[in-house]
Amino acid sequence: MEGGGSKTWRFASPNPAVAAAGEKSIQRYLLQLHACLDERGPRPVIPLSHGDPSSSPSFRTAPEAEEAVVAAVRSGEYNGYSSPTMALPARRAVAEYLSRDLPYKLSHDDIFLTCGGTQAIETVMSVFGQPGVNILLPRPGYPKHEAHAVFHRMEIRHYDLLPGRGWEIDLEAVEALADENTVAIMITNPNNPCGSVYTHGHLAKIADIASKLGILVISDEVYGHLVYGSTAFVPMGVFGETVPVITLGAISKRWAVPGWRLGWIATCDPKGILRKTKVVDSLRSFINLISDPATFLQGAIPHIMKNTNDDFFSNIVRLLKETAEICYDEIDEIKCITCPYKPEGSFFMMVKLDVSQLPDISDDVDFCSKLVKEESVVVLPGKALGMENWLRITFATEPPTLKQGLERLKSFCRRHQSQAS
Amino acid sequence: MEGGGSKTWRFASPNPAVAAAGEKSIQRYLLQLHACLDERGPRPVIPLSHGDPSSSPSFRTAPEAEEAVVAAVRSGEYNGYSSPTMALPARRAVAEYLSRDLPYKLSHDDIFLTCGGTQAIETVMSVFGQPGVNILLPRPGYPKHEAHAVFHRMEIRHYDLLPGRGWEIDLEAVEALADENTVAIMITNPNNPCGSVYTHGHLAKIADIASKLGILVISDEVYGHLVYGSTAFVPMGVFGETVPVITLGAISKRWAVPGWRLGWIATCDPKGILRKTKVVDSLRSFINLISDPATFLQGAIPHIMKNTNDDFFSNIVRLLKETAEICYDEIDEIKCITCPYKPEGSFFMMVKLDVSQLPDISDDVDFCSKLVKEESVVVLPGKALGMENWLRITFATEPPTLKQGLERLKSFCRRHQSQAS
Repeated sequence: MEGGGSKTWRFASPNPAVAAAGEKSIQRYLLQLHACLDERGPRPVIPLSHGDPSSSPSFRTAPEAEEAVVAAVRSGEYNGYSSPTMALPARRAVAEYLSRDLPYKLSHDDIFLTCGGTQAIETVMSVFGQPGVNILLPRPGYPKHEAHAVFHRMEIRHYDLLPGRGWEIDLEAVEALADENTVAIMITNPNNPCGSVYTHGHLAKIADIASKLGILVISDEVYGHLVYGSTAFVPMGVFGETVPVITLGAISKRWAVPGWRLGWIATCDPKGILRKTKVVDSLRSFINLISDPATFLQGAIPHIMKNTNDDFFSNIVRLLKETAEICYDEIDEIKCITCPYKPEGSFFMMVKLDVSQLPDISDDVDFCSKLVKEESVVVLPGKALGMENWLRITFATEPPTLKQGLERLKSFCRRHQSQAS
Repeated sequence: MEGGGSKTWRFASPNPAVAAAGEKSIQRYLLQLHACLDERGPRPVIPLSHGDPSSSPSFRTAPEAEEAVVAAVRSGEYNGYSSPTMALPARRAVAEYLSRDLPYKLSHDDIFLTCGGTQAIETVMSVFGQPGVNILLPRPGYPKHEAHAVFHRMEIRHYDLLPGRGWEIDLEAVEALADENTVAIMITNPNNPCGSVYTHGHLAKIADIASKLGILVISDEVYGHLVYGSTAFVPMGVFGETVPVITLGAISKRWAVPGWRLGWIATCDPKGILRKTKVVDSLRSFINLISDPATFLQGAIPHIMKNTNDDFFSNIVRLLKETAEICYDEIDEIKCITCPYKPEGSFFMMVKLDVSQLPDISDDVDFCSKLVKEESVVVLPGKALGMENWLRITFATEPPTLKQGLERLKSFCRRHQSQAS
């Protein structure tokens, strides 16, 4: 027992749920891919794997947003802890921002500020998660939804998104999956990783089914308003009269500032069911327990939401429309990759890989590893999102860089296909 | 089942651990006290309850710190998600900052950045917490330690801090409390709420006992360097050769910016035991799962740590020494309140209330409620910290305001005492 090495330490069995949750992570795959990178490669790495366009000059956030933060820092009024009074204008600003798209008004009481969308996910999973309950999550899905559910030892039941139906939810399956221990269905709209946008009619059906089942809809709308196709963005909260909705959002994506870590949870529940069932109390308790976003961001948010020029938003959306087209058209020319749906929202595309055409490649993970090694292009294997032999491609990057990345992808596929037959 | 009100919703039993954790909260008491406030009172409220001096002009943070954040925001380089490369300078800066006071060097691999001290607490409790294990926490203590332990359904075993011995830890009790399911002893140094600072010798004894028991020391040093008495601040990490230490820290208190939410976890473990026992992996997994501090703060931290003028720190410490004296001397004149220890660190004082001298006051909560109602002065009832009929007074405020608050406290006590006999 003496001498360090052989001593028994009683803390040597940390919480196993942490490791289990850590398995559900995009980072894990990206680290693996970056390890395959040939550092001596003559060409710069083109990352088409990650949902963060902010390093591209075209996606730099609005100057109004940066200046609002600078002013809040310089004022010295936001150095201290947040208080109900300090947080009020920020919560009110978010309530007004979201209310524009709803048939009823949210109040500041419906808004909980979080450190980005991640902490919004953490919060809802902490509030509902416990052994014995289950939650319905989409496949393909966003690993952080799953990770936080796993951390709370919830059972995860996957419903499918249907590539042949524009990645709509397999609604019949949802009904069959739920039982008396199901607490919620989680949806992502606009969708990461599919780039799809749910129609008003489809959302209405989700609301009806959830109401029938007596479960909650948790709607991750972090990509809200980033739409550029034929389907308009409709927040799930529009159906708050039918079923209580908890909406997760953030300035991360629309303002291209994921690192700022300013998000929210909104209870879209005009009938007050979440208040009556004490869910609101539970959200408040958990939010008080954890860290809140930097106070000067809370101070800046009303200005960010009020002053950001509409041109900023329309430029970003126009650019995404352009890069989505580029991505779709280029992929269309690659034989072993099929895109079942042209993205209309977010900045991702899910494409199907036909490994049977690639004799020396075993699966999507192998594909991505070899791609990064040979071409210095990073795309995410579908396995990371629950879809083996699919790929997720991010197109939120400068058009020339995107084209170059897709050219390399194309020649990689051609080269490996040519070894067939 | 129809019509909203009477319908059965399956999410109506949120995670009970959230509510249980919410019970352990200073905010809960403060909200209660603020509800007692007579809004028509002619005098401004004097809050001596809360550990946040940042609204006092004398405690405004260093201009270098504010400018470092402004520069990082304006650079546009920190809008995106953090990455291993982006976070590296910040982690290195914290490692260097902490290493100045240690007999060995920390590396960036020993540092995990968090959203303030709160998320550092959340992280360690998530990593070690699970049903079946127990943790040793001080009484009086900081409710967030307890809340996060409760959230993870850990058993809490309290060891006492001894007012008659300068609030040192009752070390014999620690040995008796621990069993094979004990994972850690948590200490707070400099201490909140006692204002005490542990000597080198006392810390050495804690290390010896923890090593003998095979448990970890988690040292909350959020008040690190805020010392002004005869005892120098010695970080627990100094004893990392004896026992692995996890240190929690933040810029919150020393730089008077608790709202900025920039903290850290440091593994002070020159023998690498935390690495061998996979604790480091677990910390990394959990940190990857949750939100990180705003990236422009990560960008600013090397500049904040390098450029803050020494005068800023010495002024703050001088001011705290002055306000601690004022507080001690004024309390000394109040018959029904005794201070067993003159604070030497942090900005709190624990004082004992003799309710037997106050015929119309039942306990500390009643005392604080009536005090706020009659005098618009807020102090924290000891019950919030596990010590009934004690009070915690914060003295990190402008001297004239502090004096005025204590004068009102004094006349309140005199008035209520006079009703005795």
